[in-house]
Amino acid sequence: MLKYRTIQESAFEANMQLPALGLVIFTFGNVSVADRKLGAFAIKPSGVPYAELAPEKMVVVDFEGKVLEGTLRPSSDTLTHALLYKKWTDIGSIVHTHSTYATAWAQAQRDIPIFGTTHADHLTVDIPCAAPMSDKMIVGNYEFETGNQIINCFKQRKLDYHNVEMMLVGNHAPFAWGKNAAKAVYNAAVLEEVAKMAWLTEQIDPKAKRLKRSLIKKHHDRKHGPDSYYGQN
Amino acid sequence: MLKYRTIQESAFEANMQLPALGLVIFTFGNVSVADRKLGAFAIKPSGVPYAELAPEKMVVVDFEGKVLEGTLRPSSDTLTHALLYKKWTDIGSIVHTHSTYATAWAQAQRDIPIFGTTHADHLTVDIPCAAPMSDKMIVGNYEFETGNQIINCFKQRKLDYHNVEMMLVGNHAPFAWGKNAAKAVYNAAVLEEVAKMAWLTEQIDPKAKRLKRSLIKKHHDRKHGPDSYYGQN
Amino acid sequence: MLKYRTIQESAFEANMQLPALGLVIFTFGNVSVADRKLGAFAIKPSGVPYAELAPEKMVVVDFEGKVLEGTLRPSSDTLTHALLYKKWTDIGSIVHTHSTYATAWAQAQRDIPIFGTTHADHLTVDIPCAAPMSDKMIVGNYEFETGNQIINCFKQRKLDYHNVEMMLVGNHAPFAWGKNAAKAVYNAAVLEEVAKMAWLTEQIDPKAKRLKRSLIKKHHDRKHGPDSYYGQN
Amino acid sequence: MLKYRTIQESAFEANMQLPALGLVIFTFGNVSVADRKLGAFAIKPSGVPYAELAPEKMVVVDFEGKVLEGTLRPSSDTLTHALLYKKWTDIGSIVHTHSTYATAWAQAQRDIPIFGTTHADHLTVDIPCAAPMSDKMIVGNYEFETGNQIINCFKQRKLDYHNVEMMLVGNHAPFAWGKNAAKAVYNAAVLEEVAKMAWLTEQIDPKAKRLKRSLIKKHHDRKHGPDSYYGQN
Repeated sequence: MLKYRTIQESAFEANMQLPALGLVIFTFGNVSVADRKLGAFAIKPSGVPYAELAPEKMVVVDFEGKVLEGTLRPSSDTLTHALLYKKWTDIGSIVHTHSTYATAWAQAQRDIPIFGTTHADHLTVDIPCAAPMSDKMIVGNYEFETGNQIINCFKQRKLDYHNVEMMLVGNHAPFAWGKNAAKAVYNAAVLEEVAKMAWLTEQIDPKAKRLKRSLIKKHHDRKHGPDSYYGQN
Repeated sequence: MLKYRTIQESAFEANMQLPALGLVIFTFGNVSVADRKLGAFAIKPSGVPYAELAPEKMVVVDFEGKVLEGTLRPSSDTLTHALLYKKWTDIGSIVHTHSTYATAWAQAQRDIPIFGTTHADHLTVDIPCAAPMSDKMIVGNYEFETGNQIINCFKQRKLDYHNVEMMLVGNHAPFAWGKNAAKAVYNAAVLEEVAKMAWLTEQIDPKAKRLKRSLIKKHHDRKHGPDSYYGQN
Repeated sequence: MLKYRTIQESAFEANMQLPALGLVIFTFGNVSVADRKLGAFAIKPSGVPYAELAPEKMVVVDFEGKVLEGTLRPSSDTLTHALLYKKWTDIGSIVHTHSTYATAWAQAQRDIPIFGTTHADHLTVDIPCAAPMSDKMIVGNYEFETGNQIINCFKQRKLDYHNVEMMLVGNHAPFAWGKNAAKAVYNAAVLEEVAKMAWLTEQIDPKAKRLKRSLIKKHHDRKHGPDSYYGQN
Repeated sequence: MLKYRTIQESAFEANMQLPALGLVIFTFGNVSVADRKLGAFAIKPSGVPYAELAPEKMVVVDFEGKVLEGTLRPSSDTLTHALLYKKWTDIGSIVHTHSTYATAWAQAQRDIPIFGTTHADHLTVDIPCAAPMSDKMIVGNYEFETGNQIINCFKQRKLDYHNVEMMLVGNHAPFAWGKNAAKAVYNAAVLEEVAKMAWLTEQIDPKAKRLKRSLIKKHHDRKHGPDSYYGQN
């Protein structure tokens, strides 16, 4: 059907950016793009190399995870995407990668400390790392529960997914999202760069201190506050 | 003879992927591809730069290491390949590189700990590092004994080469294999990426803990178990 | 107006070098180029991706920060550039990036120690890292005060901006400058490389010592002294 | 004169390989190529960017350092090259870079330990790091004395420049050489790769042990000994 063509094309282009930005090798990641009016999202098919992708191969799924269009099996992470779209009602795209530096922080089960303005330009808190999931969640509906783990982490920490558009799942890897595919992919790349910088910062000074509040607020406000003056609006 | 043409072409293409994937510089690696019906494998000629390779330059050897076809001398590691093909009767391709991060773990004589799902997507145990070889083995038939060291390491640790398709030889470098060339090269690249992530994980937390059993099982089963749902089958 | 065309073209070309040299991702940096006779400089527009830049999109600003030509909003860092041009009366170009290794040193709030001749070929002292700014400066005219922080750092340390053409702002990121755009961009790239080498040096020997005076003087003099013999003059 | 054309072309091509192999940025390195019958070598002109090089711009110099042909000033390191050609009478090419990892070891003033077979495939000892030069040598004929420092380091350690074709000058950077340009450039790239691997090895195990003698001997002999069987000759 042609009605899903726009999100299929958008998802295809966004998926192709992941290897171009150095965020994935082989099939280590996936992007989905949602259309809220249609109640559906398009996502990468499972295990298909990026070089073999095409817009019409993107699988269209509803927010319960039911396939609406496409002959290929959708990404094995589809239920995680579906739950996030269902609960976070105004995000338009989700990116999951195993990008090297962000994944290392996830494997170490540590939040990424806010050490500089590069980080503060994008969010005002440490990048959260959700705890590894309970055994019960893992043996249950694993990918669906991964979505729950992400949402519960944000609830417990009183974080707003509009302000914090990236996070780590402990022992696993990063997720990022945004209002559209360009923003979600941007966030995934920023997360990887900030993860590398934070690792290096601790290498140079193992007792490096977090950025002070005034500087966090300033850098965030000039880009995201009501009086922001970054960009062209 | 034309009967070896298929494995020569496959071996040529696979060898050319090593520099493209950043796994080798100059002549630091080799791939072989076997045809079980013909009882033979094609392997890179020794010391020839990748840019000068061609399918017809691949040397064809039997599983005792005897050259069947080709005017060039085969890779100096040929007897290691031959022994692995002889003992592990259903592998179709072997890759040997000196890729940077995997080689560093081999030089440190350490297994690569299973820290995350990226690792568990491919195997359920630490990536084994065989002990450096005994002086007797080294001064003997060195490359043949390297094959024995690999096989003995798997026997002692009760590992199955179908489930663990990558390993390190202590003080030396990595080996990977698979049912065909694409899978063997894929495994060599995954090993390098997992080696880099594991190093970074210990940098970020020197006391990082291994992935718990339930998560290892889940990630492995969804990709490799009887009820796997990753990929398109 | 055509009178600003030369600096717009120069600023465009210099900005395009930043991603080519691996110094920025997305919009993480900006270059400006000044014309002293015109009392103006051309600078990257704020938040515009490098791929969408063009000479005519470069915004022309005077040394008080007032826009003279251009319909786009100039870089949010414009007032920092303006103040440096005003106070340092013979620099012709300024580069600001968030390049990975230099930014990590800034986040660790450390000067980059002079460990080798690569560093001494360019300056004879540690690369200075200005202290993070006071809360008062941050909530005030932030970008203007960033310029003051840089200038005050040089005054306090009795450094000459002709001899030291690169520095870090604590918790933030690097700045570099030079007589023209080519030199300023060169300095930004040298800073990143020296930052990486210094980090590695401390990794290899945490107690590594600074270069001795005689060697610093020799390497600097052969390139910059009155009897210099490096290059073609 | 046409008689120097061969070494000029060879030096040009070898110099162009340095940025292609990631061993230099900007003008951070130089290659020379000698013709023993002509008693001359061709070397990169000083401070000229690689993109502007051409065979006819290579400067021809004798083994005392006197320019024989060329209108440009030769590399500032020319006297180091000249002395090495004069004293080591059968090397055909010399490469000097400031490649990142090798330079970091030089800045830490440490020999690069022999940790694996990648190293042993090329030399049987730690890669030597000459002590920083005395103040007297530095204020004297610096580049000439750099050559002396290299030669004296080899004498003191009883090393043979035929067997050890790479080294570090403390606080400075690496030098490599070989019978021809291809071998010298190869050695410079191998040195950088081995330097990176050795750094990583110590990161993974700070107490990593050197390769044992039997393995060093085996890997060296199979590539370089009288009964070598690596390569095609």
